[in-house]
Amino acid sequence: MIPARVIERKRDGHALEAPVLAGFLEGYFRGEVPDYQMSAFLMAAYLRGLDDGETEVLVRCMLESGRTLDLSYLPGPRVDKHSTGGVGDKVSLVLAPLVAALDVFVPMMSGRGLGHTTGTLDKLEAIPGFQTDVSLARFKEILKSVGCAMIGQTAEIAPLDKRLYALRDVTGTVSAIPLIAASIMSKKLAEGLTGLLLDVKVGGGAFIPEEERASELARKMVAIGAARGLPTVALLTAMDRPLGHAIGNGLETAEAVRCLRGEGPADLRELVLVEAAEMLRLGYPDVPAAEARSRAEAALDSGAALERFVRLVEAQGGEPRVADEPDLLKTAPVRADVSAERAGIVLEVAPRGLGEGVIALGGGRTMMHQPIDHGVGFEVLVVPGQEVADGDLLGVVHAKDENGARVGVETLREAVRFGEPGERARDVRPLVSLRVSPDDAS
Amino acid sequence: MIPARVIERKRDGHALEAPVLAGFLEGYFRGEVPDYQMSAFLMAAYLRGLDDGETEVLVRCMLESGRTLDLSYLPGPRVDKHSTGGVGDKVSLVLAPLVAALDVFVPMMSGRGLGHTTGTLDKLEAIPGFQTDVSLARFKEILKSVGCAMIGQTAEIAPLDKRLYALRDVTGTVSAIPLIAASIMSKKLAEGLTGLLLDVKVGGGAFIPEEERASELARKMVAIGAARGLPTVALLTAMDRPLGHAIGNGLETAEAVRCLRGEGPADLRELVLVEAAEMLRLGYPDVPAAEARSRAEAALDSGAALERFVRLVEAQGGEPRVADEPDLLKTAPVRADVSAERAGIVLEVAPRGLGEGVIALGGGRTMMHQPIDHGVGFEVLVVPGQEVADGDLLGVVHAKDENGARVGVETLREAVRFGEPGERARDVRPLVSLRVSPDDAS
Repeated sequence: MIPARVIERKRDGHALEAPVLAGFLEGYFRGEVPDYQMSAFLMAAYLRGLDDGETEVLVRCMLESGRTLDLSYLPGPRVDKHSTGGVGDKVSLVLAPLVAALDVFVPMMSGRGLGHTTGTLDKLEAIPGFQTDVSLARFKEILKSVGCAMIGQTAEIAPLDKRLYALRDVTGTVSAIPLIAASIMSKKLAEGLTGLLLDVKVGGGAFIPEEERASELARKMVAIGAARGLPTVALLTAMDRPLGHAIGNGLETAEAVRCLRGEGPADLRELVLVEAAEMLRLGYPDVPAAEARSRAEAALDSGAALERFVRLVEAQGGEPRVADEPDLLKTAPVRADVSAERAGIVLEVAPRGLGEGVIALGGGRTMMHQPIDHGVGFEVLVVPGQEVADGDLLGVVHAKDENGARVGVETLREAVRFGEPGERARDVRPLVSLRVSPDDAS
Repeated sequence: MIPARVIERKRDGHALEAPVLAGFLEGYFRGEVPDYQMSAFLMAAYLRGLDDGETEVLVRCMLESGRTLDLSYLPGPRVDKHSTGGVGDKVSLVLAPLVAALDVFVPMMSGRGLGHTTGTLDKLEAIPGFQTDVSLARFKEILKSVGCAMIGQTAEIAPLDKRLYALRDVTGTVSAIPLIAASIMSKKLAEGLTGLLLDVKVGGGAFIPEEERASELARKMVAIGAARGLPTVALLTAMDRPLGHAIGNGLETAEAVRCLRGEGPADLRELVLVEAAEMLRLGYPDVPAAEARSRAEAALDSGAALERFVRLVEAQGGEPRVADEPDLLKTAPVRADVSAERAGIVLEVAPRGLGEGVIALGGGRTMMHQPIDHGVGFEVLVVPGQEVADGDLLGVVHAKDENGARVGVETLREAVRFGEPGERARDVRPLVSLRVSPDDAS
């Protein structure tokens, strides 16, 4: 294996034989192939692509670079969900306890905020006392007793992916479909699952806005799961507008709690139920789709999901009373209402500007390990297609000071685009636009 | 200038604004942009291309990273020739003294063997005592007194190109046209020339075998010269067969000496005369083409060129008697004749295998700074299209031992491809297939 020859073959558009690619990747992991050769390879792979066989080799090398969890001690199926990330996406906080209440174990390993999106770990840490860095041993205990547990990815899982990701981040090679697919799947394959649900966001607030590329990512990940014996379903879900009303860590956690209480926005509730039913059927394939849906609704409406949430918060050191008193969540001191300055129809609520606005308010990171303000963010109370009267409330900005509030008001106003009364909003995406299952991918 | 953003823009096929690209290149030269970002950029540039404006920025940054020679003390025009490299290409050894005899100063900075080709410096060092690493001050003295001087490129010239070349060499990013063009031209622009001739080889023994890419390289280099005020002419010349009979450093030097004495192969003599006339006209644009040709012939046939060669060898410490007694050149102890095993027509003499054969015999390098055997190589005595009888001599292998001779004989037999008597050889390329001058390029 001569590294320059491997790079040249990929540069010229050839598919690499499995042992050659594996030798190159393992050489990099051992420190024998330097970063400058790997980054040239990654750029060639970005522009020339990796075929399914090559992607499978990449997944395998990343997976085998670290340890994999053995969760076979659990008396039931183990299903996780991964979202590619969007603005206002607080689904995991509702979904994990809800699915646990349906007798499916949910060993959830999540990330922090990335780019213009918030992260599940940061949302959980808006709950006073909540620990996301519990040991793997404790994680396994909580998982068994509560049915779900939510932690960050440990350093022992797919360390090659970590190194490659850090290199991709500074060399313009992040957003290649096979590289993204392999990165996500290598981590999820290490979790010892029996089923996996992927929520692939599509639209202006997603990392991959284009429908075609998002479907390609979905299909690739489902195929990787299938090839390695992990039943995987992917959904393409709408990120051309924020999900729900709340954007910002603590605000999203509060909205998730409302959803668990049977309240909260309709789109959030609907997506949670769709995904819960999918996860239930990944755990118990014999359950018909309609029954899975009604069982998910029942677990949400009966309070069973909320009860699991309380137990989860308690087990991970958090203040369980947040389930009844959302005011106990970390909040920001300054609030500013944003009202319509004229009557009209809302044509668009653009998600990306709001996501970046959370960072500007201090609620996201521009560097790793930066402390963040969990209380800041936006509540956007209108949706595309909605008619509003002059003076109607469009949303609320939560900021740490008056200056932040001013900036936030401007951001919110820019995100909500108005038309004349009678003008039609452009069609919004269906909440779920595509479902890819192993049968489709094969 | 954020390096990752620069890489992404090139990755996505955009042309970079001059200050942005210059900032990136200068940042690399200062050590602020690491190798792994530059190699990702180079791969993106390889696959997406660099336009003329970007190539010009690259040339300028490489040129300005080092010093440029001031040769304005010379009382006449200063013209150099650069060849992209081929098998059996010993033109420079004849051309430099010949053009000096035509009152054009030739400040020649050459390279060592690269890949399957030998290098001018190695050929000169087949002359006992010849020094190619004289100081710049001495180089200037010799240039003034002899009219030509031949040394290696100094470390002070285009050091950014040196660093980029070393990185390209191990990251599969050598053979991109704009990168090659910028690398060659930045070095030649530093030589303080008033004119430049480029010999761009095309065919199986060239680094860029394809006609179309070779012409693109030629045009790009001529345009770079024109943009920076250096009149530049490029010729596409045949490298689908070796040039002349001799391949290997000392053997090539001996053949060059024969050419200087009015002997030697016709193709070598013809290419030397074409190139000498071009260089004469680059120095003195008022000289008509036909007159330039006849003056070049006269200088070769009168012995004036040979006399300059003797003075050059003497000035650079070499044994001048090699001009009369080529046996004084470094030679190999074992010779093996290769004869035709049947009658037939020679369809092809494939150059690349012979070039690689010289390395196998010990006459080229597989690593930098490796010592080489100047005596080994091949004399190929037949040309494509030639009819031979059973037992006719095809060529001679020069090796350091019997084992080398055996391997060499096999290499030579493989390179000479036979057809049946009466079968036609495929058409060989014309010796010069294209001429690009500043007028064509503009």
